[in-house]
Amino acid sequence: MSLRKSPKRLPLAAYIEGVLARDRVILSRAITLVESKLDSDRELATAMIEELMPHTGQSIRVGITGVPGVGKSTFIERFGMLLCEAGHHLAVLAVDPSSQKSGGSILGDKTRMVQLSHHPSAYIRPTASGAALGGVAIHTRESILLCEAAGFDVIFIETVGVGQSETMVHGMVDFFLLLMLAGAGDELQGIKKGIMEMADAVVINKADGDNLKAAKRAKVDYQNALHLFPLGESNWSPQVLTCSSVEGTGLQEIWQMILKYKEQTQHSSYFLANRKRQNLQWMREAIQFLLQHAFFGREEVKAKAAQLEEQVAQGHMAPTTAAFELMRLFGMS
Amino acid sequence: MSLRKSPKRLPLAAYIEGVLARDRVILSRAITLVESKLDSDRELATAMIEELMPHTGQSIRVGITGVPGVGKSTFIERFGMLLCEAGHHLAVLAVDPSSQKSGGSILGDKTRMVQLSHHPSAYIRPTASGAALGGVAIHTRESILLCEAAGFDVIFIETVGVGQSETMVHGMVDFFLLLMLAGAGDELQGIKKGIMEMADAVVINKADGDNLKAAKRAKVDYQNALHLFPLGESNWSPQVLTCSSVEGTGLQEIWQMILKYKEQTQHSSYFLANRKRQNLQWMREAIQFLLQHAFFGREEVKAKAAQLEEQVAQGHMAPTTAAFELMRLFGMS
Repeated sequence: MSLRKSPKRLPLAAYIEGVLARDRVILSRAITLVESKLDSDRELATAMIEELMPHTGQSIRVGITGVPGVGKSTFIERFGMLLCEAGHHLAVLAVDPSSQKSGGSILGDKTRMVQLSHHPSAYIRPTASGAALGGVAIHTRESILLCEAAGFDVIFIETVGVGQSETMVHGMVDFFLLLMLAGAGDELQGIKKGIMEMADAVVINKADGDNLKAAKRAKVDYQNALHLFPLGESNWSPQVLTCSSVEGTGLQEIWQMILKYKEQTQHSSYFLANRKRQNLQWMREAIQFLLQHAFFGREEVKAKAAQLEEQVAQGHMAPTTAAFELMRLFGMS
Repeated sequence: MSLRKSPKRLPLAAYIEGVLARDRVILSRAITLVESKLDSDRELATAMIEELMPHTGQSIRVGITGVPGVGKSTFIERFGMLLCEAGHHLAVLAVDPSSQKSGGSILGDKTRMVQLSHHPSAYIRPTASGAALGGVAIHTRESILLCEAAGFDVIFIETVGVGQSETMVHGMVDFFLLLMLAGAGDELQGIKKGIMEMADAVVINKADGDNLKAAKRAKVDYQNALHLFPLGESNWSPQVLTCSSVEGTGLQEIWQMILKYKEQTQHSSYFLANRKRQNLQWMREAIQFLLQHAFFGREEVKAKAAQLEEQVAQGHMAPTTAAFELMRLFGMS
């Protein structure tokens, strides 16, 4: 981390005014600010978020996941267009841990959703690359708040369905939607264990043409399967729907379902209780992330940790012993 | 934490020799030592574990979960007796986070498994109460190592199926078994979302008398449902079996299945890869636990955290802001 001030930054008031005035250029710069690793940027970002807090929380936050090939981009484009044309303001944020490795962004690319990205009511933000998962969690959550302050009433958090990012995204949204294909076989679908049970809805995409019959059959299978699984605290029975992003069928039903979920959970007061819990969870995770960041930020701890991990993996040292040794090195034991 | 030395402690060599000689009294005292919160005990415990490391790892570690009422105690007693009579040495460790609240232990009570607790080849350790989940994870894992060093070749980790402890137990075992009842309805079963997908086997208990037909039907239902879910990295298809702990039927089949799992995953080298990953995960969790322990161990941090949590829950303060504020108070920002 560096203490130098980036010359690209605006004064605090310019961010606040710009975001509240729904200025997309300023919104993008505000998101870049929360993604920054500079200490001075962090101070500015924190001050900005604090000022904007009273203007946040009014959107419905929807997580959308599914493996590559399931048609996520087309789904978001068509579903998003439907919402924008109905008068909604939609922000699409992407979380893609795989881009950590490639250093590039494979999700959230505006070229994927040409039509939606040109719609005046839509805002698409490609994922930032190169950050650790904990860091991504912090700035994605802050980006949600910024988009809400900028007046977006529907927020999609898109993720890729194969890693640990789903649990993270599940922890920051109101509704979690899993896109699947009919008859692709579990191996092909590549969805990680446990993701199915987090879903508030399973949507079988590409239910068109020759695929229609298989999609309907898959719907029944998933309905039967999900029925065996316990309800979550929301008391919501996960729905299984089919849609065709290409033909535009089934999309309206998905939105009606999300609205029904919102109504039902607001009525039961689960909606707000869940947000409250998510906020506390977010605080705990941020503390955890910052502590680990400080810990492994020490060169000597980092170097020693790599050595000890080798011994632990081989079973030559007890993991607890390694942890205590590192704590001593960090000056805490 | 205190630095005084407990008068009840033995010299290091006495623990090592006693555990290796399979002296149950010493084993119990060794487990009490790893459960201790005294700093001096921790040093002794760490030294003991290090010395015993070469004698660990040779057991099959089986997690057993299911809600109260599913017949877990009777199942473990009968299944355990079968193993002991076949020449195995069985240790049963209980993890029960609910005892944190009551301050007492509802699991692992020897009075529950009278016959098994008197068998010369069985060792039953009631859960320690009053510890945080992270602390329980550390000492349960160390207790597994101690039991292995004491020659137990089968270790059951029993947990209660309703809280966060399942994920923790899942992370420390080779095989995870979920006990269910037929026709109890999801609401009654009370199993938390996500636990089903962690299971390597679902065993429908009380498959006897009037219940037999329903159990067989439930078996087919669960088989169909589990089939829709993706395989884990182990490449093992979760099995659904029925048993009657009272009549003793189906138990032999469960053991055969566990052996088959072991053989298959050892052959694919998943077994060891999984243990390696679990060890590294354990190390990371221990670091995390110790960092948080140091953090919230500071009175001023703890007091301020409680204040900030209130503001965060109400949505008046951004969680990240609260986290940064606490980090400053802790002397790190």
